Amino acid sequence: LQAGIIDKQIIALTHQMADAAGEIQLRYFLKSVEVETKADLSPVTLADREVESTLRAMIEAHYPEHGIIGEEFGSVREDAALKWVLDPIDGTQAFIAGIPTFTSLIALTHNGIPIMGMIDQPCSKERWLGIAGENTTLSGNKIHTRPCDSLANATIGTTAMKYFTPEQAEIFEALKNACGNVLFGGDAYLYAGLASGKIDLVVEAGLKPYDYCALRPVVEGAGGIMTDWQGNALKLGSDGRVIAAANAALHAQAMKFLAPSSPKSLLRF
Amino acid sequence: LQAGIIDKQIIALTHQMADAAGEIQLRYFLKSVEVETKADLSPVTLADREVESTLRAMIEAHYPEHGIIGEEFGSVREDAALKWVLDPIDGTQAFIAGIPTFTSLIALTHNGIPIMGMIDQPCSKERWLGIAGENTTLSGNKIHTRPCDSLANATIGTTAMKYFTPEQAEIFEALKNACGNVLFGGDAYLYAGLASGKIDLVVEAGLKPYDYCALRPVVEGAGGIMTDWQGNALKLGSDGRVIAAANAALHAQAMKFLAPSSPKSLLRF
Repeated sequence: LQAGIIDKQIIALTHQMADAAGEIQLRYFLKSVEVETKADLSPVTLADREVESTLRAMIEAHYPEHGIIGEEFGSVREDAALKWVLDPIDGTQAFIAGIPTFTSLIALTHNGIPIMGMIDQPCSKERWLGIAGENTTLSGNKIHTRPCDSLANATIGTTAMKYFTPEQAEIFEALKNACGNVLFGGDAYLYAGLASGKIDLVVEAGLKPYDYCALRPVVEGAGGIMTDWQGNALKLGSDGRVIAAANAALHAQAMKFLAPSSPKSLLRF
Repeated sequence: LQAGIIDKQIIALTHQMADAAGEIQLRYFLKSVEVETKADLSPVTLADREVESTLRAMIEAHYPEHGIIGEEFGSVREDAALKWVLDPIDGTQAFIAGIPTFTSLIALTHNGIPIMGMIDQPCSKERWLGIAGENTTLSGNKIHTRPCDSLANATIGTTAMKYFTPEQAEIFEALKNACGNVLFGGDAYLYAGLASGKIDLVVEAGLKPYDYCALRPVVEGAGGIMTDWQGNALKLGSDGRVIAAANAALHAQAMKFLAPSSPKSLLRF
Protein backbone atom coordinates (compact mmCIF):
# COMPACT_ATOMS: atom_id res chain seq x y z
CA LEU A 1 0.00 0.00 0.00
CA GLN A 2 2.44 2.61 1.20
CA ALA A 3 5.48 0.78 -0.07
CA GLY A 4 5.94 3.26 -2.86
CA ILE A 5 5.98 6.26 -0.59
CA ILE A 6 9.00 5.54 1.55
CA ASP A 7 11.73 5.49 -1.06
CA LYS A 8 15.51 5.67 -0.82
CA GLN A 9 15.51 9.45 -1.05
CA ILE A 10 13.19 9.84 1.91
CA ILE A 11 15.18 7.37 3.98
CA ALA A 12 18.46 9.08 3.09
CA LEU A 13 17.06 12.47 4.05
CA THR A 14 15.78 11.09 7.34
CA HIS A 15 19.25 9.78 8.20
CA GLN A 16 20.76 13.16 7.29
CA MET A 17 18.19 14.90 9.49
CA ALA A 18 19.01 12.66 12.44
CA ASP A 19 22.73 13.27 11.87
CA ALA A 20 22.16 17.02 11.90
CA ALA A 21 19.96 16.81 14.99
CA GLY A 22 22.55 14.77 16.88
CA GLU A 23 25.36 17.16 16.05
CA ILE A 24 23.44 20.12 17.44
CA GLN A 25 22.20 18.19 20.48
CA LEU A 26 25.72 17.08 21.41
CA ARG A 27 27.12 20.60 21.08
CA TYR A 28 24.64 21.80 23.72
CA PHE A 29 24.59 18.61 25.79
CA LEU A 30 28.26 18.85 26.62
CA LYS A 31 27.81 22.23 28.30
CA SER A 32 25.11 23.71 30.52
CA VAL A 33 22.05 25.07 28.76
CA GLU A 34 19.81 28.01 29.48
CA VAL A 35 16.45 26.82 30.64
CA GLU A 36 13.22 28.51 29.77
CA THR A 37 10.00 27.56 31.50
CA LYS A 38 6.94 27.03 29.33
CA ALA A 39 3.41 27.28 30.66
CA ASP A 40 3.40 23.51 31.22
CA LEU A 41 6.80 23.70 32.93
CA SER A 42 8.51 21.45 30.42
CA PRO A 43 12.05 22.77 29.93
CA VAL A 44 12.85 24.01 26.48
CA THR A 45 16.31 24.78 25.31
CA LEU A 46 18.05 26.70 22.62
CA ALA A 47 19.13 23.35 21.26
CA ASP A 48 15.48 22.36 20.83
CA ARG A 49 14.86 25.34 18.58
CA GLU A 50 18.08 25.05 16.63
CA VAL A 51 17.45 21.36 15.92
CA GLU A 52 13.88 21.90 14.77
CA SER A 53 14.63 24.85 12.50
CA THR A 54 17.49 22.90 10.94
CA LEU A 55 15.28 19.86 10.28
CA ARG A 56 12.48 22.02 8.88
CA ALA A 57 14.91 23.70 6.49
CA MET A 58 16.10 20.31 5.26
CA ILE A 59 12.53 19.20 4.56
CA GLU A 60 11.69 22.48 2.84
CA ALA A 61 14.75 22.10 0.60
CA HIS A 62 13.85 18.56 -0.52
CA TYR A 63 10.07 18.32 -0.23
CA PRO A 64 8.57 21.82 -0.25
CA GLU A 65 5.12 20.31 -0.84
CA HIS A 66 5.13 18.17 2.34
CA GLY A 67 3.48 19.33 5.54
CA ILE A 68 5.45 19.74 8.78
CA ILE A 69 4.33 19.52 12.40
CA GLY A 70 6.95 20.35 15.02
CA GLU A 71 7.02 20.77 18.77
CA GLU A 72 8.53 24.24 18.72
CA PHE A 73 7.32 25.98 15.57
CA GLY A 74 3.86 24.59 14.87
CA SER A 75 2.41 23.37 11.57
CA VAL A 76 2.69 24.22 7.91
CA ARG A 77 0.66 22.80 4.98
CA GLU A 78 -1.70 20.92 7.25
CA ASP A 79 -3.74 19.69 4.27
CA ALA A 80 -0.81 17.86 2.66
CA ALA A 81 -1.20 14.05 2.47
CA LEU A 82 2.41 13.56 3.55
CA LYS A 83 3.34 15.34 6.77
CA TRP A 84 6.59 15.16 8.76
CA VAL A 85 6.23 15.19 12.53
CA LEU A 86 9.28 16.35 14.49
CA ASP A 87 10.34 16.24 18.10
CA PRO A 88 13.74 17.97 18.07
CA ILE A 89 14.61 16.73 21.58
CA ASP A 90 12.46 14.08 23.21
CA GLY A 91 13.35 13.80 26.88
CA THR A 92 14.33 17.44 27.44
CA GLN A 93 14.28 16.83 31.21
CA ALA A 94 16.96 14.18 30.78
CA PHE A 95 18.83 16.37 28.29
CA ILE A 96 19.01 19.25 30.74
CA ALA A 97 19.93 16.96 33.63
CA GLY A 98 22.88 15.58 31.67
CA ILE A 99 21.35 12.13 31.18
CA PRO A 100 21.92 10.70 27.68
CA THR A 101 18.46 9.25 27.11
CA PHE A 102 17.19 12.18 25.08
CA THR A 103 16.54 11.48 21.40
CA SER A 104 15.37 13.15 18.23
CA LEU A 105 12.12 11.79 16.80
CA ILE A 106 11.38 12.08 13.10
CA ALA A 107 8.16 10.69 11.62
CA LEU A 108 6.47 10.76 8.26
CA THR A 109 2.69 10.39 8.18
CA HIS A 110 0.43 9.56 5.22
CA ASN A 111 -3.15 10.73 5.58
CA GLY A 112 -2.47 10.97 9.29
CA ILE A 113 -1.02 7.48 9.67
CA PRO A 114 2.65 7.22 10.74
CA ILE A 115 4.38 5.19 8.01
CA MET A 116 8.00 5.87 8.99
CA GLY A 117 9.66 6.70 12.29
CA MET A 118 13.22 7.27 13.42
CA ILE A 119 14.49 7.44 17.01
CA ASP A 120 18.08 8.68 17.29
CA GLN A 121 20.44 8.98 20.27
CA PRO A 122 23.71 10.70 19.38
CA CYS A 123 25.77 9.81 22.51
CA SER A 124 25.33 6.06 22.21
CA LYS A 125 24.92 6.30 18.43
CA GLU A 126 21.80 4.13 18.59
CA ARG A 127 19.34 4.73 15.77
CA TRP A 128 16.02 2.94 15.37
CA LEU A 129 14.22 3.04 11.99
CA GLY A 130 10.70 1.74 11.50
CA ILE A 131 8.93 1.66 8.14
CA ALA A 132 5.37 0.41 7.65
CA GLY A 133 5.49 -3.17 6.36
CA GLU A 134 9.22 -3.61 6.99
CA ASN A 135 11.30 -5.02 9.82
CA THR A 136 12.47 -2.35 12.25
CA THR A 137 16.24 -1.90 12.48
CA LEU A 138 18.54 -0.69 15.24
CA SER A 139 21.64 0.84 13.70
CA GLY A 140 21.05 -1.29 10.61
CA ASN A 141 20.31 -4.62 12.32
CA LYS A 142 16.83 -6.15 12.37
CA ILE A 143 15.27 -6.28 15.82
CA HIS A 144 12.21 -7.94 17.32
CA THR A 145 10.08 -7.62 20.42
CA ARG A 146 10.61 -10.48 22.85
CA PRO A 147 8.11 -13.23 23.56
CA CYS A 148 6.27 -12.48 26.79
CA ASP A 149 2.77 -13.80 27.13
CA SER A 150 1.65 -12.69 30.58
CA LEU A 151 1.56 -9.50 32.60
CA ALA A 152 3.10 -11.37 35.52
CA ASN A 153 6.28 -11.85 33.50
CA ALA A 154 6.21 -8.43 31.88
CA THR A 155 8.31 -5.34 32.47
CA ILE A 156 6.13 -2.25 32.12
CA GLY A 157 7.56 1.23 31.65
CA THR A 158 6.29 4.79 31.90
CA THR A 159 8.26 8.03 31.95
CA ALA A 160 6.73 9.52 35.12
CA MET A 161 3.50 9.34 37.11
CA LYS A 162 3.11 13.12 36.88
CA TYR A 163 1.95 12.86 33.27
CA PHE A 164 -1.19 10.98 34.31
CA THR A 165 -4.39 12.60 35.56
CA PRO A 166 -5.50 11.17 38.94
CA GLU A 167 -7.96 8.84 37.17
CA GLN A 168 -5.32 7.69 34.68
CA ALA A 169 -2.83 7.19 37.50
CA GLU A 170 -5.28 4.89 39.25
CA ILE A 171 -5.69 2.80 36.10
CA PHE A 172 -1.92 2.66 35.57
CA GLU A 173 -1.30 1.66 39.20
CA ALA A 174 -3.63 -1.31 38.89
CA LEU A 175 -1.99 -2.42 35.65
CA LYS A 176 1.52 -1.89 37.02
CA ASN A 177 0.69 -3.98 40.09
CA ALA A 178 -0.27 -6.86 37.81
CA CYS A 179 3.11 -6.67 36.07
CA GLY A 180 6.29 -8.39 37.21
CA ASN A 181 8.54 -5.35 36.98
CA VAL A 182 8.16 -1.60 36.51
CA LEU A 183 10.53 0.95 35.05
CA PHE A 184 10.21 4.73 35.33
CA GLY A 185 11.91 7.28 33.13
CA GLY A 186 13.17 6.81 29.63
CA ASP A 187 10.81 8.74 27.33
CA ALA A 188 11.14 7.40 23.75
CA TYR A 189 13.79 4.97 24.97
CA LEU A 190 11.05 2.88 26.53
CA TYR A 191 9.48 2.26 23.12
CA ALA A 192 12.88 1.73 21.52
CA GLY A 193 13.64 -0.78 24.28
CA LEU A 194 10.34 -2.54 23.61
CA ALA A 195 11.24 -2.81 19.92
CA SER A 196 14.66 -4.18 20.91
CA GLY A 197 13.08 -6.92 23.04
CA LYS A 198 14.04 -5.50 26.44
CA ILE A 199 10.73 -4.07 27.71
CA ASP A 200 7.28 -5.63 27.24
CA LEU A 201 4.76 -2.86 27.84
CA VAL A 202 4.76 0.94 27.83
CA VAL A 203 1.72 2.89 28.96
CA GLU A 204 1.59 6.68 28.95
CA ALA A 205 -0.84 9.57 28.66
CA GLY A 206 -0.71 13.20 27.63
CA LEU A 207 1.51 12.57 24.62
CA LYS A 208 1.46 14.88 21.63
CA PRO A 209 1.73 13.74 17.97
CA TYR A 210 5.43 14.65 17.90
CA ASP A 211 5.91 12.41 20.96
CA TYR A 212 4.28 9.27 19.53
CA CYS A 213 4.21 9.39 15.70
CA ALA A 214 7.79 8.21 15.23
CA LEU A 215 7.31 5.44 17.79
CA ARG A 216 4.51 3.47 16.16
CA PRO A 217 6.40 2.32 13.02
CA VAL A 218 9.41 1.39 15.18
CA VAL A 219 7.28 -0.65 17.61
CA GLU A 220 5.08 -2.30 14.97
CA GLY A 221 7.92 -3.10 12.57
CA ALA A 222 9.53 -5.06 15.42
CA GLY A 223 6.40 -7.13 16.00
CA GLY A 224 4.73 -4.96 18.63
CA ILE A 225 1.42 -3.17 18.80
CA MET A 226 0.84 0.50 19.59
CA THR A 227 -2.63 1.92 20.11
CA ASP A 228 -4.56 4.38 22.22
CA TRP A 229 -6.30 3.26 25.42
CA GLN A 230 -9.36 2.22 23.39
CA GLY A 231 -7.37 -0.05 21.12
CA ASN A 232 -7.39 2.30 18.14
CA ALA A 233 -4.21 2.42 16.06
CA LEU A 234 -2.31 5.65 16.71
CA LYS A 235 -2.45 8.44 14.17
CA LEU A 236 -2.46 12.22 14.02
CA GLY A 237 -5.39 13.28 16.18
CA SER A 238 -5.19 10.44 18.70
CA ASP A 239 -5.90 11.65 22.23
CA GLY A 240 -2.40 11.12 23.61
CA ARG A 241 -3.09 8.09 25.78
CA VAL A 242 -0.91 5.33 24.38
CA ILE A 243 -0.05 1.72 24.98
CA ALA A 244 2.74 -0.20 23.30
CA ALA A 245 2.91 -3.96 23.76
CA ALA A 246 5.39 -6.59 22.63
CA ASN A 247 2.60 -8.68 21.13
CA ALA A 248 -1.16 -9.01 20.75
CA ALA A 249 -1.66 -11.34 23.74
CA LEU A 250 -0.01 -8.91 26.13
CA HIS A 251 -1.87 -5.98 24.57
CA ALA A 252 -5.17 -7.74 25.15
CA GLN A 253 -4.35 -8.42 28.80
CA ALA A 254 -3.35 -4.81 29.41
CA MET A 255 -6.44 -3.48 27.62
CA LYS A 256 -8.60 -5.09 30.29
CA PHE A 257 -7.19 -2.49 32.67
CA LEU A 258 -7.22 0.46 30.27
CA ALA A 259 -10.72 0.02 28.86
CA PRO A 260 -12.36 -2.61 31.07
CA SER A 261 -16.00 -1.96 30.27
CA SER A 262 -15.78 -0.44 26.84
CA PRO A 263 -17.15 -2.30 23.83
CA LYS A 264 -14.41 -0.42 21.98
CA SER A 265 -11.70 -2.31 23.81
CA LEU A 266 -11.15 -4.65 20.89
CA LEU A 267 -8.05 -4.11 18.85
CA ARG A 268 -8.91 -2.43 15.58
CA PHE A 269 -6.84 -0.99 12.76
CA LEU B 1 46.49 14.39 54.26
CA GLN B 2 45.50 11.73 51.74
CA ALA B 3 47.35 13.37 48.88
CA GLY B 4 50.05 10.75 49.01
CA ILE B 5 47.67 7.84 48.71
CA ILE B 6 46.07 8.51 45.35
CA ASP B 7 49.09 8.36 43.09
CA LYS B 8 49.49 8.00 39.35
CA GLN B 9 49.55 4.21 39.54
CA ILE B 10 46.24 4.04 41.34
CA ILE B 11 44.63 6.49 38.93
CA ALA B 12 45.98 4.62 35.92
CA LEU B 13 44.66 1.33 37.28
CA THR B 14 41.25 2.87 37.93
CA HIS B 15 41.04 4.04 34.32
CA GLN B 16 42.04 0.58 33.11
CA MET B 17 39.39 -0.97 35.34
CA ALA B 18 36.70 1.34 33.95
CA ASP B 19 37.85 0.55 30.40
CA ALA B 20 37.57 -3.17 31.11
CA ALA B 21 34.16 -2.75 32.75
CA GLY B 22 32.84 -0.75 29.80
CA GLU B 23 34.02 -3.30 27.27
CA ILE B 24 32.20 -6.13 29.03
CA GLN B 25 29.08 -4.04 29.68
CA LEU B 26 28.81 -3.05 26.00
CA ARG B 27 29.23 -6.63 24.84
CA TYR B 28 26.16 -7.63 26.88
CA PHE B 29 24.24 -4.37 26.45
CA LEU B 30 24.03 -4.76 22.70
CA LYS B 31 22.16 -8.06 23.01
CA SER B 32 19.49 -9.34 25.35
CA VAL B 33 20.65 -10.62 28.74
CA GLU B 34 19.43 -13.44 30.90
CA VAL B 35 17.76 -12.06 33.97
CA GLU B 36 18.01 -13.64 37.39
CA THR B 37 15.84 -12.44 40.24
CA LYS B 38 17.51 -11.86 43.60
CA ALA B 39 15.64 -11.92 46.88
CA ASP B 40 15.28 -8.12 46.68
CA LEU B 41 14.10 -8.40 43.05
CA SER B 42 16.92 -6.29 41.67
CA PRO B 43 17.91 -7.79 38.32
CA VAL B 44 21.40 -9.19 38.14
CA THR B 45 23.09 -10.17 34.96
CA LEU B 46 25.93 -12.27 33.77
CA ALA B 47 27.60 -9.02 32.80
CA ASP B 48 27.46 -7.87 36.42
CA ARG B 49 29.44 -10.90 37.51
CA GLU B 50 31.93 -10.84 34.67
CA VAL B 51 32.67 -7.15 35.25
CA GLU B 52 33.18 -7.55 38.98
CA SER B 53 35.40 -10.62 38.74
CA THR B 54 37.49 -8.85 36.11
CA LEU B 55 37.91 -5.74 38.27
CA ARG B 56 38.73 -7.82 41.34
CA ALA B 57 41.41 -9.71 39.43
CA MET B 58 42.96 -6.41 38.31
CA ILE B 59 43.11 -5.16 41.91
CA GLU B 60 44.54 -8.45 43.15
CA ALA B 61 47.25 -8.29 40.49
CA HIS B 62 48.37 -4.78 41.45
CA TYR B 63 47.47 -4.35 45.11
CA PRO B 64 47.09 -7.78 46.73
CA GLU B 65 47.15 -6.12 50.16
CA HIS B 66 44.12 -3.89 49.52
CA GLY B 67 40.64 -4.84 50.68
CA ILE B 68 37.77 -5.22 48.20
CA ILE B 69 34.02 -4.82 48.69
CA GLY B 70 31.85 -5.69 45.72
CA GLU B 71 28.15 -5.97 45.01
CA GLU B 72 28.29 -9.51 43.68
CA PHE B 73 31.12 -11.31 45.46
CA GLY B 74 31.28 -9.77 48.93
CA SER B 75 34.34 -8.62 50.87
CA VAL B 76 37.98 -9.63 51.24
CA ARG B 77 40.59 -8.21 53.68
CA GLU B 78 38.04 -6.13 55.53
CA ASP B 79 40.67 -4.89 57.99
CA ALA B 80 42.84 -3.28 55.31
CA ALA B 81 43.12 0.52 55.58
CA LEU B 82 42.67 0.88 51.84
CA LYS B 83 39.58 -0.82 50.43
CA TRP B 84 38.17 -0.74 46.91
CA VAL B 85 34.38 -0.59 46.63
CA LEU B 86 32.91 -1.83 43.33
CA ASP B 87 29.53 -1.64 41.68
CA PRO B 88 30.05 -3.52 38.41
CA ILE B 89 26.79 -2.20 36.91
CA ASP B 90 24.96 0.60 38.66
CA GLY B 91 21.51 0.97 37.13
CA THR B 92 20.95 -2.67 36.22
CA GLN B 93 17.26 -1.95 35.60
CA ALA B 94 18.24 0.56 32.93
CA PHE B 95 20.91 -1.80 31.59
CA ILE B 96 18.40 -4.58 31.11
CA ALA B 97 15.82 -2.24 29.61
CA GLY B 98 18.30 -1.06 26.99
CA ILE B 99 18.67 2.44 28.46
CA PRO B 100 22.27 3.70 28.43
CA THR B 101 22.31 5.28 31.88
CA PHE B 102 23.97 2.34 33.60
CA THR B 103 27.52 2.93 34.83
CA SER B 104 30.37 1.21 36.59
CA LEU B 105 31.30 2.67 39.97
CA ILE B 106 34.81 2.28 41.34
CA ALA B 107 35.79 3.77 44.69
CA LEU B 108 38.82 3.65 46.94
CA THR B 109 38.29 4.20 50.67
CA HIS B 110 40.87 5.01 53.34
CA ASN B 111 39.86 4.04 56.86
CA GLY B 112 36.30 3.90 55.57
CA ILE B 113 36.32 7.33 53.94
CA PRO B 114 35.89 7.45 50.14
CA ILE B 115 38.96 9.32 48.80
CA MET B 116 38.57 8.49 45.11
CA GLY B 117 35.56 7.71 42.96
CA MET B 118 35.00 7.02 39.28
CA ILE B 119 31.67 6.92 37.42
CA ASP B 120 31.93 5.53 33.89
CA GLN B 121 29.39 5.23 31.07
CA PRO B 122 30.73 3.33 28.07
CA CYS B 123 28.04 4.23 25.48
CA SER B 124 28.42 7.99 25.82
CA LYS B 125 32.07 7.64 26.86
CA GLU B 126 31.47 9.94 29.84
CA ARG B 127 33.82 9.36 32.75
CA TRP B 128 33.74 11.28 36.03
CA LEU B 129 36.75 11.14 38.36
CA GLY B 130 36.71 12.59 41.86
CA ILE B 131 39.74 12.62 44.16
CA ALA B 132 39.67 14.03 47.71
CA GLY B 133 41.12 17.55 47.66
CA GLU B 134 41.13 17.85 43.87
CA ASN B 135 38.75 19.26 41.29
CA THR B 136 36.44 16.62 39.83
CA THR B 137 36.82 16.01 36.10
CA LEU B 138 34.43 14.80 33.41
CA SER B 139 36.41 13.06 30.67
CA GLY B 140 39.43 15.12 31.69
CA ASN B 141 37.76 18.53 32.01
CA LYS B 142 37.20 20.21 35.36
CA ILE B 143 33.55 20.54 36.31
CA HIS B 144 31.64 22.39 39.00
CA THR B 145 28.22 22.28 40.60
CA ARG B 146 26.03 25.20 39.57
CA PRO B 147 25.02 28.09 41.81
CA CYS B 148 21.49 27.52 43.10
CA ASP B 149 20.62 29.03 46.44
CA SER B 150 16.99 28.08 47.01
CA LEU B 151 14.88 24.96 46.86
CA ALA B 152 12.32 26.85 44.79
CA ASN B 153 14.87 27.12 41.98
CA ALA B 154 16.31 23.67 42.46
CA THR B 155 15.94 20.50 40.41
CA ILE B 156 15.80 17.50 42.74
CA GLY B 157 16.36 13.95 41.55
CA THR B 158 15.76 10.46 42.89
CA THR B 159 15.89 7.14 41.07
CA ALA B 160 12.46 5.83 42.10
CA MET B 161 9.97 6.24 44.93
CA LYS B 162 9.97 2.47 45.50
CA TYR B 163 13.35 2.65 47.24
CA PHE B 164 11.89 4.71 50.10
CA THR B 165 10.04 3.27 53.10
CA PRO B 166 6.59 4.86 53.55
CA GLU B 167 8.02 7.25 56.20
CA GLN B 168 10.95 8.18 53.98
CA ALA B 169 8.62 8.66 51.03
CA GLU B 170 6.58 11.14 53.05
CA ILE B 171 9.70 13.14 53.90
CA PHE B 172 10.86 13.08 50.29
CA GLU B 173 7.43 14.16 49.01
CA ALA B 174 7.47 17.24 51.25
CA LEU B 175 10.98 18.16 50.13
CA LYS B 176 10.20 17.51 46.47
CA ASN B 177 7.12 19.73 46.68
CA ALA B 178 9.33 22.58 47.91
CA CYS B 179 11.60 22.18 44.88
CA GLY B 180 11.09 23.80 41.48
CA ASN B 181 11.56 20.65 39.44
CA VAL B 182 11.81 16.92 40.03
CA LEU B 183 13.52 14.21 38.04
CA PHE B 184 13.02 10.46 38.45
CA GLY B 185 15.38 7.76 37.25
CA GLY B 186 19.06 8.07 36.58
CA ASP B 187 20.85 6.16 39.36
CA ALA B 188 24.48 7.36 39.60
CA TYR B 189 23.83 9.70 36.68
CA LEU B 190 21.91 11.96 39.04
CA TYR B 191 25.04 12.54 41.14
CA ALA B 192 27.21 12.86 38.04
CA GLY B 193 24.73 15.43 36.72
CA LEU B 194 24.91 17.30 40.01
CA ALA B 195 28.71 17.41 39.74
CA SER B 196 28.37 18.66 36.15
CA GLY B 197 26.13 21.54 37.23
CA LYS B 198 22.88 20.18 35.78
CA ILE B 199 21.00 18.96 38.87
CA ASP B 200 20.94 20.65 42.30
CA LEU B 201 19.82 18.02 44.79
CA VAL B 202 19.67 14.23 44.93
CA VAL B 203 17.96 12.45 47.82
CA GLU B 204 17.79 8.68 48.10
CA ALA B 205 17.56 5.89 50.66
CA GLY B 206 18.44 2.23 50.84
CA LEU B 207 21.81 2.66 49.13
CA LYS B 208 24.65 0.26 49.78
CA PRO B 209 28.35 1.25 50.09
CA TYR B 210 28.99 0.17 46.49
CA ASP B 211 26.15 2.48 45.42
CA TYR B 212 27.42 5.64 47.14
CA CYS B 213 31.17 5.39 47.85
CA ALA B 214 32.29 6.39 44.36
CA LEU B 215 29.80 9.27 44.30
CA ARG B 216 31.03 11.32 47.26
CA PRO B 217 34.48 12.26 45.86
CA VAL B 218 32.89 13.13 42.51
CA VAL B 219 30.23 15.35 44.11
CA GLU B 220 32.51 17.00 46.65
CA GLY B 221 35.39 17.59 44.23
CA ALA B 222 32.94 19.56 42.08
CA GLY B 223 31.93 21.80 44.99
CA GLY B 224 28.97 19.81 46.28
CA ILE B 225 28.18 18.16 49.60
CA MET B 226 27.16 14.55 50.16
CA THR B 227 25.99 13.32 53.56
CA ASP B 228 23.50 11.02 55.20
CA TRP B 229 20.09 12.33 56.33
CA GLN B 230 21.61 13.44 59.63
CA GLY B 231 24.29 15.54 57.98
CA ASN B 232 27.13 13.10 58.58
CA ALA B 233 29.70 12.75 55.83
CA LEU B 234 29.24 9.46 53.96
CA LYS B 235 31.61 6.60 54.66
CA LEU B 236 31.60 2.82 54.83
CA GLY B 237 28.95 1.96 57.39
CA SER B 238 26.62 4.88 56.65
CA ASP B 239 22.97 3.83 56.81
CA GLY B 240 22.21 4.25 53.10
CA ARG B 241 20.07 7.38 53.29
CA VAL B 242 21.94 9.97 51.28
CA ILE B 243 21.63 13.57 50.19
CA ALA B 244 23.84 15.30 47.65
CA ALA B 245 23.57 19.06 47.25
CA ALA B 246 25.21 21.54 44.88
CA ASN B 247 26.31 23.71 47.81
CA ALA B 248 26.06 24.19 51.56
CA ALA B 249 23.12 26.65 51.47
CA LEU B 250 20.96 24.23 49.53
CA HIS B 251 22.06 21.33 51.73
CA ALA B 252 21.01 23.25 54.84
CA GLN B 253 17.58 24.03 53.38
CA ALA B 254 17.00 20.39 52.44
CA MET B 255 18.18 19.13 55.83
CA LYS B 256 15.26 20.96 57.45
CA PHE B 257 13.04 18.36 55.75
CA LEU B 258 15.28 15.34 56.30
CA ALA B 259 16.11 15.89 59.98
CA PRO B 260 13.76 18.65 61.14
CA SER B 261 13.93 18.15 64.88
CA SER B 262 17.27 16.46 65.30
CA PRO B 263 20.13 18.28 67.05
CA LYS B 264 22.31 16.17 64.76
CA SER B 265 21.01 17.99 61.70
CA LEU B 266 24.06 20.23 61.55
CA LEU B 267 26.57 19.50 58.87
CA ARG B 268 29.58 17.76 60.32
CA PHE B 269 32.64 16.17 58.79
